[in-house]
Amino acid sequence: MEMFGDNSCPPPCNTLGFLQKNNSLDDKGRLAGQKNLLSCDNSDRDARFRLTETDFSNLFARDLLPAKNGEERLSTAPPRCWTSTTLTSSWRVWKASTWSCPTSLSPWSRSWWTAGTRSSMASGQVTHDSSTSCPLVLTSSVWLESGSPPLLTPTCKFTYEIAPVFVLMEQLTLKKMREMIGWPDGEGDGLFSPGGAISNMYSVMIARYKYFPEVKTKGMSAAPRLVLFTSEHSHYSIKKAGAALGFGSENVILLSTDERGRVIPADLEAKIIDAKQKGYVPLFVNATAGSTVYGAFDPINEIADICEKYNLWLHVDYIKTYIKLCRANSVTWNPHKMMGVPLQCSAILVREKGIMAGCNSMCAGYLFQPDKQYDVTYDTGDKAIQCGRHVDIFKFWLMWKAKGTIGFEQHIDKCLDLSQYLYNKIKNREGYEMVFDGVPQHTNVCFWYIPPSLRGMPDGDERREKLHRVAPKIKAMMMESGTTMVGYQPQGNKVNFFRMVVSNPAATQSDIDFLIDEIERMGNDL
Amino acid sequence: MEMFGDNSCPPPCNTLGFLQKNNSLDDKGRLAGQKNLLSCDNSDRDARFRLTETDFSNLFARDLLPAKNGEERLSTAPPRCWTSTTLTSSWRVWKASTWSCPTSLSPWSRSWWTAGTRSSMASGQVTHDSSTSCPLVLTSSVWLESGSPPLLTPTCKFTYEIAPVFVLMEQLTLKKMREMIGWPDGEGDGLFSPGGAISNMYSVMIARYKYFPEVKTKGMSAAPRLVLFTSEHSHYSIKKAGAALGFGSENVILLSTDERGRVIPADLEAKIIDAKQKGYVPLFVNATAGSTVYGAFDPINEIADICEKYNLWLHVDYIKTYIKLCRANSVTWNPHKMMGVPLQCSAILVREKGIMAGCNSMCAGYLFQPDKQYDVTYDTGDKAIQCGRHVDIFKFWLMWKAKGTIGFEQHIDKCLDLSQYLYNKIKNREGYEMVFDGVPQHTNVCFWYIPPSLRGMPDGDERREKLHRVAPKIKAMMMESGTTMVGYQPQGNKVNFFRMVVSNPAATQSDIDFLIDEIERMGNDL
Repeated sequence: MEMFGDNSCPPPCNTLGFLQKNNSLDDKGRLAGQKNLLSCDNSDRDARFRLTETDFSNLFARDLLPAKNGEERLSTAPPRCWTSTTLTSSWRVWKASTWSCPTSLSPWSRSWWTAGTRSSMASGQVTHDSSTSCPLVLTSSVWLESGSPPLLTPTCKFTYEIAPVFVLMEQLTLKKMREMIGWPDGEGDGLFSPGGAISNMYSVMIARYKYFPEVKTKGMSAAPRLVLFTSEHSHYSIKKAGAALGFGSENVILLSTDERGRVIPADLEAKIIDAKQKGYVPLFVNATAGSTVYGAFDPINEIADICEKYNLWLHVDYIKTYIKLCRANSVTWNPHKMMGVPLQCSAILVREKGIMAGCNSMCAGYLFQPDKQYDVTYDTGDKAIQCGRHVDIFKFWLMWKAKGTIGFEQHIDKCLDLSQYLYNKIKNREGYEMVFDGVPQHTNVCFWYIPPSLRGMPDGDERREKLHRVAPKIKAMMMESGTTMVGYQPQGNKVNFFRMVVSNPAATQSDIDFLIDEIERMGNDL
Repeated sequence: MEMFGDNSCPPPCNTLGFLQKNNSLDDKGRLAGQKNLLSCDNSDRDARFRLTETDFSNLFARDLLPAKNGEERLSTAPPRCWTSTTLTSSWRVWKASTWSCPTSLSPWSRSWWTAGTRSSMASGQVTHDSSTSCPLVLTSSVWLESGSPPLLTPTCKFTYEIAPVFVLMEQLTLKKMREMIGWPDGEGDGLFSPGGAISNMYSVMIARYKYFPEVKTKGMSAAPRLVLFTSEHSHYSIKKAGAALGFGSENVILLSTDERGRVIPADLEAKIIDAKQKGYVPLFVNATAGSTVYGAFDPINEIADICEKYNLWLHVDYIKTYIKLCRANSVTWNPHKMMGVPLQCSAILVREKGIMAGCNSMCAGYLFQPDKQYDVTYDTGDKAIQCGRHVDIFKFWLMWKAKGTIGFEQHIDKCLDLSQYLYNKIKNREGYEMVFDGVPQHTNVCFWYIPPSLRGMPDGDERREKLHRVAPKIKAMMMESGTTMVGYQPQGNKVNFFRMVVSNPAATQSDIDFLIDEIERMGNDL
């Protein structure tokens, strides 16, 4: 009885071919001359199966459609697709699980990364080039449950064997992101999550696990009364996380900000001291790099100094652009915001390696078997609070290949330029008041439009009350006419104001001019 | 100064047309004769804009692609697409926010629902028929952040105004699902979430809020020591939720099961009494309808009796098929499992109306303004723990239209038939042992393959140890050869066994025969 040794890895065998049961002998000719790095001939293993190269340029969308009601099949190449626990044979293009162990795939994925990320790739190249790994994704991922082909509706990711290329893509991209925020060698931990709110929730969970690991098994009663700090201008997800995770929203202490919406470090320190005096234990500070309303950047270095002094976890909710965040313990980075990746695409990045598995693993035997034939540290599922995860990495990976890092930078610069253009146009224009003085820190431009009827009115309750109704009214008219939409909200003691955020680099100065015209056209008679 | 009254709703104006700035006068002719229910002419509102009907049969995929680097635009119809807070004008097909208040859209969506859900719709009809609402989705959704068109990468959903059709689709589908599980008139609460694990987490949060609402603000220290109950065979996400939400995984008490993997009601009652005697407070019971490994159905009625007796929340993790679950307080229903909807598509359903907002709302002023011109109870974002949510409803809606309820039923029946076929083939076959006696309760067939070398061996540690290594070995060989994959795991004191789950209705009996052949071919010499 011969078996592979424990955790042994079968010889790498990666191929662009699909395994087809009913290939004619003629297909052998196609196979012979077309081997490449990603291909090997395993036809000697099983006489009933032969590998054929698949020419992706001849693959049409309909080849990825399911057979009708499961009854109709292509007579020429009836597909047989199996998944780890599921029979899925309704798809005309077949997944024949083409196994590659992590160590054999890693060098390719690393070289794909370095090959094309700084500058952009020609658009026609993106889907066909092996450095984007589209072909490999098609042949190596397992289609779970629905049998959906991975390019249309990707497989879930909880183990390497189900989605090897996606797992490696995620690993490499997270490493790259950690490098970009300045952690040495990009070391650390991380995961793509279903949105920034969940990424922020992860940060709170991980901080709690770091300081009070016994909470995982014993619950919050095993810890003292813990408090979290975040700006009064921060995203509401920190407060939601506090409520959900059992801290209580009252124990999420809001920090005062300056006139530009930035946390005042002295206020943080005062509130930490105050909490300690009350017998509470300060645990976690969230700093925001690009706040939702003002686009403000909290003074991260000063906040980091205070976190070090009092031994608190520093999380940075990093919505908007690239900056160095070396001193953060964890970072939420949402490529679906300023980088323009379609929603959902959010990453939680953590500086301490391995801590996410410590925090979240439950070691479910039916998913995470230790006796697999590959290094099971590639199985990411157990460090998530989800089980199966939607594949959010692939679109981001392809966009990065297509645009390059430079492309993303240009994208963001263009948006910044347009915001600046808007700011310059309205800052001294009749009928406008800026919500705060000075150039916006990011692409958010916050302003009031003052209709002619209010321009002569002295400040006071009556004017405030009327002004409060102007933005909602103009927005409703915009929505009704369908020409444009701009958000508004009150903030603190400030009545409703417009908040224009430019995140589309294809917008132009004439679009901005149009917005101003529309506001004035609609607001003139109010 | 004339304004709409508070919460007034502008006259319904829905159209299939795109708003185009540079239309020639000729377009007016196209418009005139082509009005329909979903169309109205608002060209009198603004001379610069005219509505034109869009013929979706002439819309190609490239029309949905972004302009290259934001520079290149179609000269014939330069698009201008704005979003609520974002300029997004790079798409060649333009979203011109076509406003419809909830009350004006609801009748349509209700009629779409009743029109085509019981039986299936011809496949060609699905994308064009207005009852699927594809056209309306294109014109009415707002593209956030990335400006991605909703049919390719849907907009996020946190407010009605951003994704009106998706919000209504979600509302109607959740109501339909609640009706199907037997809650009167489909009343209740619910949300689509990023997977079953998160839906299960919601159920625990909501149960806690129901019995101890002060935990939301004051944290777990405001409650006594709470305990949760779930089967030793249940999905590990209940335990993860217990750890994440601050209960502690030790306070998730595992219930014993019978030989078929079903919770033993007497064990539940005994453990409730035991917990109470220790001074803990039993809060929540999770019952599973179709467990992960055995496909077992916990005896929900007996469990409901006990929950009523002790006043506990009953959640049902409802993975597999349609059954009545009237007595549950909440239900996780994953269309991405047996119904074959591509991942991710999971719903949390709650019997008590409005409780999710109570549990999760934080009333962020910048998103959920009370002074909008429509009924803001349609804004679903604040009852979620996410902010923006990926649109998971649309694919499900379209599948339901395409397959009909009958189609889903047939789909599941076919899978059940195939599992039965597999069970019948191997139950008395040499070399197989079933993990439990009797016909499977669902599509899970659990069995050991006994290689010839082990068949004569008496039961004992040596045989168990060797048998434990058989399934991993065969699975590794399957993955290496790429012909198939079947999962395995140990369970309790049972060594590694295969777990075959059929979820693809296009599989055939010959696929099952093939699986058996492969196992025997690979396992014969072990």
